[in-house]
This record gives sequence, C-alpha cells and structure tokens, in this order.
Amino acid sequence: WKTQSAKEQRIELVTLARKPGANISELARRFGVSRKTVYKWLKRDDMDDRSRRPKNNTKRVPPQQGAIQSRPQSPIRDNPMIPPYLDMLLDAVRRPQERLLRTMDGLSLAQLNALPVAASAPTIKSIGWLVWHTAREQDLQIAALAGTEALWTRDGWNRRFAFDLPDDTEDWRHTPAEAAQVIIRDAALLRDYLAAATQAVIDYLQQLPPDALPDIIDRRWNPPVSRAVRLISIIDDAAMHSGQAVYVRRLLGLTD
Amino acid sequence: WKTQSAKEQRIELVTLARKPGANISELARRFGVSRKTVYKWLKRDDMDDRSRRPKNNTKRVPPQQGAIQSRPQSPIRDNPMIPPYLDMLLDAVRRPQERLLRTMDGLSLAQLNALPVAASAPTIKSIGWLVWHTAREQDLQIAALAGTEALWTRDGWNRRFAFDLPDDTEDWRHTPAEAAQVIIRDAALLRDYLAAATQAVIDYLQQLPPDALPDIIDRRWNPPVSRAVRLISIIDDAAMHSGQAVYVRRLLGLTD
Repeated sequence: WKTQSAKEQRIELVTLARKPGANISELARRFGVSRKTVYKWLKRDDMDDRSRRPKNNTKRVPPQQGAIQSRPQSPIRDNPMIPPYLDMLLDAVRRPQERLLRTMDGLSLAQLNALPVAASAPTIKSIGWLVWHTAREQDLQIAALAGTEALWTRDGWNRRFAFDLPDDTEDWRHTPAEAAQVIIRDAALLRDYLAAATQAVIDYLQQLPPDALPDIIDRRWNPPVSRAVRLISIIDDAAMHSGQAVYVRRLLGLTD
Repeated sequence: WKTQSAKEQRIELVTLARKPGANISELARRFGVSRKTVYKWLKRDDMDDRSRRPKNNTKRVPPQQGAIQSRPQSPIRDNPMIPPYLDMLLDAVRRPQERLLRTMDGLSLAQLNALPVAASAPTIKSIGWLVWHTAREQDLQIAALAGTEALWTRDGWNRRFAFDLPDDTEDWRHTPAEAAQVIIRDAALLRDYLAAATQAVIDYLQQLPPDALPDIIDRRWNPPVSRAVRLISIIDDAAMHSGQAVYVRRLLGLTD
C-alpha cells in the first residue's frame, strides 16, 4: 500500500467533484478540507502548488475558464472528419450544469425553494425553479428534436418531483403562483434530473450527423427554425438561467 | 411611390431593431407602435399575422429561439469545408448582446447604474456594470487570443467611459466599491462598446482556421487551456451575465 501524496489526493477529489451530481460538502468532509478549498481547486484546475505557478501575465485574463478543461475528452475528438467545434459545443452544454451544481451546494431545502424578493420582484424565481427549468427545457426540447418522449414523463421524473402542476406545465411562462408550486423536496433528485437532461443534450449532439444541423425543424417561425438554431437556443438559455441562479444565491445573502 | 404594406413595415422595423445598438424606443415611436409590440415581433420573428399562424403543437417548445433566425447568414455557410458548427458558435455569441440590449432598453441612466440591493446583496451589480463587463471580457480575452491590443485602450473606450478606475482594472474580481465606480454616463456609448466587443469575437471566429482551435494558449492551468476552451468560456460567460442583467432589471421593478 502506498499512501496517496497530497497531489494525488487533490486529483482524486477534483475528479470526484467534477462528476455530475457530486456532493461537494460531503467530498470536502471526506477529504478533510473546506468546501472553499474544493472550489479553489476546481477553479484552479491545477494540481501543483499555487506557489509554483508562474506569476507572469496573470492580470489580463479572467479565471473562469479553468474549471472545465480536464474533463475526459469526447471520443469523437479522434475522428478526423469532425473539427473541434463539436467539442466546443459539448463544453458549452456542460458549463451551466457545473455552475448550477455549485450554486446549489450547501443550500438547505428552504434556501433552494426561497423566493427572496417575492414582494418587490415576483418574477425572480427560486434556485430550485431555475435548476429544474434548465433541466426541463433541455429535456423537452431535445425530445422534440429527437422525436422521443421527454424524460420528464418517460422516466417518471414527474412522479418523483410530484409538483402540484400538470405534466405539460409551461415553465417558460410560469406565473409567480405556478412557479411557487415548484417545491423541491430532495436536492439529489434535482441534481439527478439536471444530470439526465444535460446528458440527453450531449448524447444528442454526439450522435447527430453534421449535415442534419441545417434541417428545418420548426415551421411556426418565419424564417423557419433550423436544428442548429434550436440547439444554440437550448445552450444559451441554460447559461442564462445558471447566471440567474448565481444572483438568487447572492440575494439569499450567500457567497458564490 | 408605393405605400409600404403593414407586413413590409414590420419587416423593416424588425430588421432595424436587430441591428447592434438599435434604439427600440425610438424605432417604436418612428413606426407608431409600442415597445411591447416591437418585442413581440422580435420574439415571433414572423411577419405574417399571428391569427394565420398554425396553432398545432405549440405547447412543447419554449419560444425564445425565434429571436435569432432571420439574421443574415454568415458567408462561410457556403464554404463546404466548414460545417454549420461555426454558424452555431456565431449565433451563441450574438444572443447575449441581443439580450443585454433588450435589458437596457428604456432605462434611465439612474436605472442603468442602480445597485438595487446594495445593502443586502452588495455583490449584485448594476445593469450598466454587467453590460460593460460582458463587453470588456470579450474584448480583453479576444485581444489576448489574437495577440493584439484590447479595443478598450486601443480605440480609446477607456477615455470615453472615463471611470475612476485604472485601465487594467480587473472587473472579474471587482469589489462592490470598485464596481460602484463603473458609472455609465451615456447609454449609447455602452451599446457601442458592446457591439464592438461582440463583433471582435465574431471576426475572430470567422477568420480562425479550425486547426488552430486545439492550440494551447494558456499554460498557467493544468491541463493547459486550448483556444477552443477559452472561446467557449467567453461565450458562456457572456450568456451568464446577460441572464443576471435580466434579473437586475426585475429587481428594479421593471418587466423584461
């Protein structure tokens, strides 16, 4: 038996912390470090000591991009027919999920469901609503593109969440009263639905032949919507809502 | 002389309203319609009467994706060597700009600079800060990738904004006191800087050979950051901040 070096432990912790649905608080406990340290390591994505990092030219570029790079490469990267654009899209799909998981971390159910400015700004949603909506929008739209049933009903997420809302509730136009019915009773369930919906987008993109991207898939618009435009709408929307969740966390008086 | 039909007028209005820096309030006045109507048309992207649109299958898919489709196609679409992925990335770059322009629309300078929850949530920024930060982050990071000087200093935006902050201020880690120095005195200037910075991302992507995407451009991280990862970080960050601006607008008691 070899004892893990500090560096190996960090690598293991960061690897586990990057998994969909990872519980950062529990991992921090298990490895005997603070949650703050875990986030610092996730941001740095650098397994060497900070003190050994070069200091030059560190002012120009914001640090956010560090959080993503060490994921496993997608297998298609080795396909010479497909340029790295697809990997870029997959990266863009994963970032909102990671941001939402960080935003959920350490929240009580009361905080997850809190509407912190309900009186003065009733259209600002709870973090729980924003995470659920991000997942459901990915789920429903990918199902529509793929011609399959949404995971929401197909895999019984509707029964597990058990909201007092119809199965076909239109979250993108929820009134404050409807949004207040999105009550999360189990944070792990929410993480899992987000992981399943995000994975559905990734799976869909990975199997999609590039020549299917210009297909017109929605003639209700003029000009009609292509598959490519719909996919970017899904990605952009998820990123937008993940940013809103960060702001609701701040409204709750919490740090990022 | 032929009088424009209602449909032709709508097409002209929507075309003008989509231009970077378009002033929606002014266009609405000029065409004799309400701002709300302009946004409805921008959302629908449909020049026919609503009453003639088919009603079937309208429940499943959220409406946001309509806002983008009728832009001029990029010339590279005709290049058979480049799949539609690049057009998708360009679409993803343009959406945050459009959202931020909608978020700014009709705001007074006081609203643009307001910190609506400064006491309870001091890290929630003003809409002006969020728009400026989105522009500047695109500007600085593309300049770093391209090896050029940032527009901020090269084209004198720093002098025109004239904040009481150093030229190399690190907005991504602004304290509330620093963020409060980002005081917008001219909304058109802010729109113009956002347009210039967004265009810099688009120009950079359009001229970039696909085989330059995997290049390692930042060795301060482990594993090092590729150009592709940095570009997605820029796009995701802009979308995230545009969503936060929408929430600050709601915090001000305004509708979207």
